[in-house]
Amino acid sequence: MSKLVTKITDRDKDFASWYTDIVREADLATYGSSKGMMIIKPYGYAIWENIQSVLDKEFKRFGHENVMMPLLIPESLLNIEKEHIEGFAPEVAWVTHGGHEKLEERMCIRPTSEVLFCDLYKNIIHSYRDLPKLYNQWCNVMRWEKTTRPFLRSREFLWQEGHTMHATKEDAMEETLRMLHVYEDFQRNYLALPVIVGKKTDKEKFAGAECTYTLEAMMYNGVALQNGTSHYFGNHFAKCFNITFLDQNNELQTPYQTSWGLSTRMIGGIIMTHGDNHGLVLPPKIAPIKVSIIPIGEGKELSSVIEKITKELEDIPYEIDSSDKTPGYKFAYSEVRGIPIRIEIGKRDLEKGEVTLVRRDTLEKENVRIEDAVKRTKELFKIIQDDMYNRALKRRDEMIYDVKTYEELVDYGKNKPGFMKINICDNPDCETKIKEDTSMKSRCIIEDESVNGPCIVCGNKATYRIYVGKQY
Amino acid sequence: MSKLVTKITDRDKDFASWYTDIVREADLATYGSSKGMMIIKPYGYAIWENIQSVLDKEFKRFGHENVMMPLLIPESLLNIEKEHIEGFAPEVAWVTHGGHEKLEERMCIRPTSEVLFCDLYKNIIHSYRDLPKLYNQWCNVMRWEKTTRPFLRSREFLWQEGHTMHATKEDAMEETLRMLHVYEDFQRNYLALPVIVGKKTDKEKFAGAECTYTLEAMMYNGVALQNGTSHYFGNHFAKCFNITFLDQNNELQTPYQTSWGLSTRMIGGIIMTHGDNHGLVLPPKIAPIKVSIIPIGEGKELSSVIEKITKELEDIPYEIDSSDKTPGYKFAYSEVRGIPIRIEIGKRDLEKGEVTLVRRDTLEKENVRIEDAVKRTKELFKIIQDDMYNRALKRRDEMIYDVKTYEELVDYGKNKPGFMKINICDNPDCETKIKEDTSMKSRCIIEDESVNGPCIVCGNKATYRIYVGKQY
Repeated sequence: MSKLVTKITDRDKDFASWYTDIVREADLATYGSSKGMMIIKPYGYAIWENIQSVLDKEFKRFGHENVMMPLLIPESLLNIEKEHIEGFAPEVAWVTHGGHEKLEERMCIRPTSEVLFCDLYKNIIHSYRDLPKLYNQWCNVMRWEKTTRPFLRSREFLWQEGHTMHATKEDAMEETLRMLHVYEDFQRNYLALPVIVGKKTDKEKFAGAECTYTLEAMMYNGVALQNGTSHYFGNHFAKCFNITFLDQNNELQTPYQTSWGLSTRMIGGIIMTHGDNHGLVLPPKIAPIKVSIIPIGEGKELSSVIEKITKELEDIPYEIDSSDKTPGYKFAYSEVRGIPIRIEIGKRDLEKGEVTLVRRDTLEKENVRIEDAVKRTKELFKIIQDDMYNRALKRRDEMIYDVKTYEELVDYGKNKPGFMKINICDNPDCETKIKEDTSMKSRCIIEDESVNGPCIVCGNKATYRIYVGKQY
Repeated sequence: MSKLVTKITDRDKDFASWYTDIVREADLATYGSSKGMMIIKPYGYAIWENIQSVLDKEFKRFGHENVMMPLLIPESLLNIEKEHIEGFAPEVAWVTHGGHEKLEERMCIRPTSEVLFCDLYKNIIHSYRDLPKLYNQWCNVMRWEKTTRPFLRSREFLWQEGHTMHATKEDAMEETLRMLHVYEDFQRNYLALPVIVGKKTDKEKFAGAECTYTLEAMMYNGVALQNGTSHYFGNHFAKCFNITFLDQNNELQTPYQTSWGLSTRMIGGIIMTHGDNHGLVLPPKIAPIKVSIIPIGEGKELSSVIEKITKELEDIPYEIDSSDKTPGYKFAYSEVRGIPIRIEIGKRDLEKGEVTLVRRDTLEKENVRIEDAVKRTKELFKIIQDDMYNRALKRRDEMIYDVKTYEELVDYGKNKPGFMKINICDNPDCETKIKEDTSMKSRCIIEDESVNGPCIVCGNKATYRIYVGKQY
């Protein structure tokens, strides 16, 4: 064990400190003088760039177009929709002065941009020919949180927000679910996160939305991370903002709206799902550096083998650690940053015509012939990607409990980390009571299970089955 | 002439209205309820994405890494460097409240991020091994301007800002000039903008910098657009922020700093350099849609020719206008958006085995054999790109005047749009007087011309030759 690795707290002893240690040691993010606002460092930002690159192509494939919307929202604009302002007012930052002058009307830094898009759409939607409008933006938003943690809850974060308008309810609902599934596929296939996908209860839906679909990931410690949402608004905002269009029969109609967003929070989800006591573990598909080559010793033969391997790697991003540190330090440094494959090239191996491949996810080593090294590395990327998903899925499923009685729920809330499946009625007070007694909140409605008992809280007829769990 | 085109004001009659008309008719940008803050629409944003894509690769090629820095700067942090705060205080937006609470210390929205990067660098630079630090960010910034125009002067704009730290003066100066030349090459080769590159006079340099290099483009109307800057800071900020490192001799040193930025303003430069009375004209290398295919009529043969051509176009972005508008309208619509090549496919041409290619920059038409259409289109991209640059260069050079007397300068300031070459001394009052009498400001020092007379203002010994001109 090198000195480096010992800086990481044991994951099972103190999960919160372990998380902070990984963020620091893998050089992902830090803080400066702007309280509660994270700085994303190059390695963390490179993960975000990879996420952006994949998702942006997916969005465009479905006809979405990127735009830049204003950072600031005039107070009167935010006030147009009542539920929305009530939801966001406690956590927006207010700009009151421009230069040395007081503004006539204060403006908030966007916490989300529904009202800004409505303000634009009312000017550019006139006819059914203008629909659908499928705009997206990659930007920063701000929510004035009291307690913050890098990636998970930060006053400022980066995200994308899609905001779309459609001629019919059906089209808008189809879009809401289409983008939910784009998110789901991305998180499963690229981030190796086994997300639970479902509808939020009315109590937990987005301020102003008709319904909200969510992606809920379970972290190593059993706590939920809401990892993205897709909202259906009906035509409620459109009515408030007077957005209308002439349909094919020349009749005035109101369009139907959606919005959907994914943020830098996902990086927190990757850390807490896949990381271990050696540091970060990155899914190969999203890793900024996929291979770490570590020469042990020096020499002509060693250099020529490195040259051969890097040439074969072609466009696979790799690094060669030729620093003057010890091999042990280099191994630990590649592990803490979660680089999927390490190739160790030492003299003893070379004599046998071999190199050593080390999988970051399992730390398993295997010797391979030099000429097979890159082929095997590529095979391992697929295997690691799948194994990471399957391990996370298995662990998650082992931490989902079917809970029948309220007593049991309270006990589980204290003693069993994870998600609980329960029957519940549609009275929001029952969700509130669970929250007060157990700190668990509704994650989402379970789509494929029917109610099989009374409401676990009040004993009345249950409306649906839901997952509950603690959350970040 | 279709109805569409007639919405554009004559460029020679009213340049300002012409500009506004292009921005609107080419669907580049608009405004909403957030005063002075532009909305960049999909077509304008796609130009920005192309700019980003080229530049980001260039930055990375030189070892720069992207990061995310905070949006807000605490007042005390901004106050650390005196000149810097004095330069920016009149135009920053202040956040005073978070949610319902007044902040203990107000924070401004970053107008630029020197102090934020210094705040980070002081924590992560300790040894010569940590240098150079070559960070960049793509982000939004805010300057509370009184009068705004889309792309040219907007309260919020998008840009990239590189901020680097180096062990020696020489390294920092080399970086300052390296990035200046990356900018110059990009603007010449991609945007077809013949920029004048040089050092700002002390009066015009960036607040807090030791020296500022600028890229000055001349618009169609002779007015200058400062199209990017690269600053050398010496170790002045580093000293203010207590940034130090141990050099190879284990002695404490202060690092040397640069910053450099390019913004969405460049889109304004493209419009005002290349546009004409038919609308926008885009350099092929940066056009989001490079080919507009316009079928005239219908039929099997026509469809199969379109299929053949689009297949050959491969990854060249094109559009097919199959709307129910008239051909004249479609031509005008492709012209107003500046699409470099239009391919008209009509029945009469097809009978001869031909299609018509139309260059957007000259509106010249040529008939080519169907099988040669794509090959010729690709040739034309190169020709158009070069011709656009050369035309702009010729026009600019025709509007540069060698001015010998102050009387002549005042007269030219009133009657001759363009840049004036003059001798001037280093007393800033002389620049101020020119500004007051002619509205012209110093553009930059002319590097390759020696002083050939006294200061044009005071008659004392001149220090250098400079360009002066009106500016956006």
